[in-house]
Amino acid sequence: MTDLTDAALGVTLVDVAPLAARLEQFAVERDWAQFHSPKNLVMALTGEVGELNEIFQWMPEEASKEAGRDPQTAQAVQEELADVLLYLVRLSSVLGVDLDAAVQQKLKANALRYPADKVRGSSKKHSQPEAGESGKD
Amino acid sequence: MTDLTDAALGVTLVDVAPLAARLEQFAVERDWAQFHSPKNLVMALTGEVGELNEIFQWMPEEASKEAGRDPQTAQAVQEELADVLLYLVRLSSVLGVDLDAAVQQKLKANALRYPADKVRGSSKKHSQPEAGESGKD
Amino acid sequence: MTDLTDAALGVTLVDVAPLAARLEQFAVERDWAQFHSPKNLVMALTGEVGELNEIFQWMPEEASKEAGRDPQTAQAVQEELADVLLYLVRLSSVLGVDLDAAVQQKLKANALRYPADKVRGSSKKHSQPEAGESGKD
Amino acid sequence: MTDLTDAALGVTLVDVAPLAARLEQFAVERDWAQFHSPKNLVMALTGEVGELNEIFQWMPEEASKEAGRDPQTAQAVQEELADVLLYLVRLSSVLGVDLDAAVQQKLKANALRYPADKVRGSSKKHSQPEAGESGKD
Repeated sequence: MTDLTDAALGVTLVDVAPLAARLEQFAVERDWAQFHSPKNLVMALTGEVGELNEIFQWMPEEASKEAGRDPQTAQAVQEELADVLLYLVRLSSVLGVDLDAAVQQKLKANALRYPADKVRGSSKKHSQPEAGESGKD
Repeated sequence: MTDLTDAALGVTLVDVAPLAARLEQFAVERDWAQFHSPKNLVMALTGEVGELNEIFQWMPEEASKEAGRDPQTAQAVQEELADVLLYLVRLSSVLGVDLDAAVQQKLKANALRYPADKVRGSSKKHSQPEAGESGKD
Repeated sequence: MTDLTDAALGVTLVDVAPLAARLEQFAVERDWAQFHSPKNLVMALTGEVGELNEIFQWMPEEASKEAGRDPQTAQAVQEELADVLLYLVRLSSVLGVDLDAAVQQKLKANALRYPADKVRGSSKKHSQPEAGESGKD
Repeated sequence: MTDLTDAALGVTLVDVAPLAARLEQFAVERDWAQFHSPKNLVMALTGEVGELNEIFQWMPEEASKEAGRDPQTAQAVQEELADVLLYLVRLSSVLGVDLDAAVQQKLKANALRYPADKVRGSSKKHSQPEAGESGKD
């Protein structure tokens, strides 16, 4: 494995800078920055993720794959995903975290942690993690 | 208010396409796409948000603003933010949701819902919502 | 419908008083009551619920019904359920909420909101709610 | 330390049996038991915890201690705490977990893990855990 990671090569995987600027402006115009501590924003993010759970809680797994087909469900899903992303980007901003760098680091760690030939087809090998997970062990 | 929104003007606020492609490849190489139903991914996302809560649960609000200064806390925060984003992008992919379009729609709705001159400085006016919130009423 | 509810009849549905006393003692002995604000405890509760999600996130719904049969999974589930209950009881204590009264009130509201003959067999009728839910409308 | 734990002595710390029976009856009358898989119930529980977060997200920690004084907030808090408990008890039922036994086991483990004279006054010593936490290390 070489060190030619995306970051080293200057590849960008996620660009949220325009959104972060927009959210900062939105908060400043309303004098809401005072409420946007990381602690508060984590709770706000949690609330939105709770709403996402409410959409899917009684839905069978197979039906969840078609959630985009029913217009009403699709609209609700889209709104909650947007809300989660808005709070996540705002939280990263106030914490000074570069999401692209964070993601690149995590993907590199995941590639080492989950070698394709060892974990193929097994959810046990990634019982908690997935495409990027620090793990607890 | 004109209809010259960012979307109409062709402005992109978030670009997660390269990351989405990377996560798809990561899943395919491991034969993990079979586990990535929206329902499962919502739960995985929730697990990561839970870990974010654990970092901040006993931290006073003021201290949370400085969470990026302690190297150990900063690293933990960065990893959890990355994990949340990875699952959010993967979830949007399997649902076929365009996060940029979703965010643009939500921001437009928020601007109408929270006029700056009416909600300035009040957290009551956005008791649940913030920089993008569909609301429940 | 008469007013002979359980509460009116003096029936107790949940009794958590001995546990609440034990948790208070535990906190006092460690001088931890200072950290147990409602806001902090909500986050701690959320962290535990996140861990519960991690146990079930890749598990098919059918398999989740048998989660108690595998000793390792059963032990993990039992620990997380206990953690959720501990924080919930502690949170109720510091807020001064009587959980039995709260539950009785909620069950009464649910019985009115979900008449058996109207919602039978339909998850749509309780898309968010279930055995006790205030609803958002 | 003797083995004279509460469980050994026959002490009950939590009794949720009457509520569990009531919820079973409620579900059966509506033919809702079919939706109450552990996986679904974990998501429903998460949704309620999300609503609890929404109440406290912009509230300063000090104000959260007085959340019971404002009648409207108190009512909302009481309803969400009830909802969380209802789903938690229902989830434990379908999983066949004895909450009292689970709590007793957890308290015993916590007493060993957090000796009062070693962790007094420090939130660092219980950065994730509290009155009952399995820990990840």
